[in-house]
Amino acid sequence: MSPLVECVPNVSEGRRAEVVEALAEAVRSTPGVRLLDVSADWAHHRSVFTFVGPPQAVVDAALALAEVAVQSIDLRQHRGLHPRIGALDVVPFVPLRGVTLEDCVALSRTFAQRLWERYRVPVYFYAHSALRPERRWLPAVRRGGFEALLHEVTTPERAPDLGEPRLHPTAGATATGARELLVAWNLELDTDDVRVARAAARRIRESSGGFRGVQAAGWALPGGHVQVSVNVLDYRVAPLDLLYEAVWEEAKRFGAQVVSTEFVGLVPAEAVAKVAAAALRARNLDASRVLEVRLAE
Amino acid sequence: MSPLVECVPNVSEGRRAEVVEALAEAVRSTPGVRLLDVSADWAHHRSVFTFVGPPQAVVDAALALAEVAVQSIDLRQHRGLHPRIGALDVVPFVPLRGVTLEDCVALSRTFAQRLWERYRVPVYFYAHSALRPERRWLPAVRRGGFEALLHEVTTPERAPDLGEPRLHPTAGATATGARELLVAWNLELDTDDVRVARAAARRIRESSGGFRGVQAAGWALPGGHVQVSVNVLDYRVAPLDLLYEAVWEEAKRFGAQVVSTEFVGLVPAEAVAKVAAAALRARNLDASRVLEVRLAE
Repeated sequence: MSPLVECVPNVSEGRRAEVVEALAEAVRSTPGVRLLDVSADWAHHRSVFTFVGPPQAVVDAALALAEVAVQSIDLRQHRGLHPRIGALDVVPFVPLRGVTLEDCVALSRTFAQRLWERYRVPVYFYAHSALRPERRWLPAVRRGGFEALLHEVTTPERAPDLGEPRLHPTAGATATGARELLVAWNLELDTDDVRVARAAARRIRESSGGFRGVQAAGWALPGGHVQVSVNVLDYRVAPLDLLYEAVWEEAKRFGAQVVSTEFVGLVPAEAVAKVAAAALRARNLDASRVLEVRLAE
Repeated sequence: MSPLVECVPNVSEGRRAEVVEALAEAVRSTPGVRLLDVSADWAHHRSVFTFVGPPQAVVDAALALAEVAVQSIDLRQHRGLHPRIGALDVVPFVPLRGVTLEDCVALSRTFAQRLWERYRVPVYFYAHSALRPERRWLPAVRRGGFEALLHEVTTPERAPDLGEPRLHPTAGATATGARELLVAWNLELDTDDVRVARAAARRIRESSGGFRGVQAAGWALPGGHVQVSVNVLDYRVAPLDLLYEAVWEEAKRFGAQVVSTEFVGLVPAEAVAKVAAAALRARNLDASRVLEVRLAE
């Protein structure tokens, strides 16, 4: 089988439909690449694009998307729920088949080099591409967001890994790196008390003693509810049903409940099958029992 | 994309490993066909083979498997939980892509004709291939099993659709037909009272006023538990989580519970995603959000 890489750029634009469409079109019009999903979120003011293709084509598509992002987005005017440091905020490269994580690290370096050369956007390497151990975790790279980084970028501690120690005036900086598949998931609670979402986020995230590989934040949604926004880096050690249960329990302590949840981007079959297996007490349900997964082998 | 058909023969042998392997090998050695799953069940004394391929290759593989079944299995010696009329009991043809249900009806006719000509096994057409309305439902074709059919086969009401009105002495008869994807699923309850399983089966099956497209039977497992064995013909109108809940409730009325469940063969991604979506209150989780499903498109 030909090598296949997934790229999941997060862009700081989730409101202007014409910009989201222009970003999508930049990916679609790159030969060899297939755009699988666009998840635009108004409250986050952020869009997540999922596309796949051969390694070099995926880098080309990410650069095509970068051009639109840099030209169309002014971070100085951007206010959304989700923390971000750049117009093109995060660009992860994920090995799907016939490609290693190390190959994807190399892709992230190529992408970063061209991003800096063409658009003068400085780059931070995170996840498996991190050059400093503390930058393996994205939240550390993104701490304080664009506004804090504007000043802190000149300090040695927060200097970019590639490019000069100053942000692009409108596009900020970009984090890129190689990572495994993850699940991005938002849970909505029927309370307007943001402390409930924050308590639930603390309960499940690794940095507060929760599940390994889970990043989570709580914030208020426009319209009166609150949200727990979760990245699950390893759904094998942090199954979604257990995270759901933990958030549910924490909400209940405050008299609130989870009213709905929503995925951002695509979800691996194994993560979905694990939830169904738990719900049905099924002893032989995993991704290998899903017809479409087997057909794709 | 090239046309793809799924075939899911049910064979009345689930105990002799060497026979199950010979059946599997007959499929594997047919050019163009991919054997995706073998589910052998000791208590049912039955195996379910799932394979896919181009239409004609799938018919060839089904006939190769038929030859082994007819030669290796003597229904007069066969006792298992699951009702059956033949060594090769049921042979469904399922359209996967680039093929219609009508095409699969034609495949079932071709297969039946050759089965009768080569092995003198008479055939009943069921599901979308049924020639008599009452034979659309498999339980009607299989009523009373091999032992009852031995005598009743000579009556006009139970005459085969193809072949002479007498059973093959050791291989009985075969039901074949075109159908949509279904889910075959067994739920185990922690009681030795078979009435609990039968009550749960009645609660969910269409013929007793339950869910549309659900066939279910209850029986005792060797070892002291009971089982509800379910075919879900349309998981869209009868989602697995609702069936689970109904069986759970019925069991609870008798002080029993569902201790585990098990799938037979493969499960469509949509059926799995629906269960996970319900468990996580997810408003955007369906098969189209599963990465591997999208990659296979």
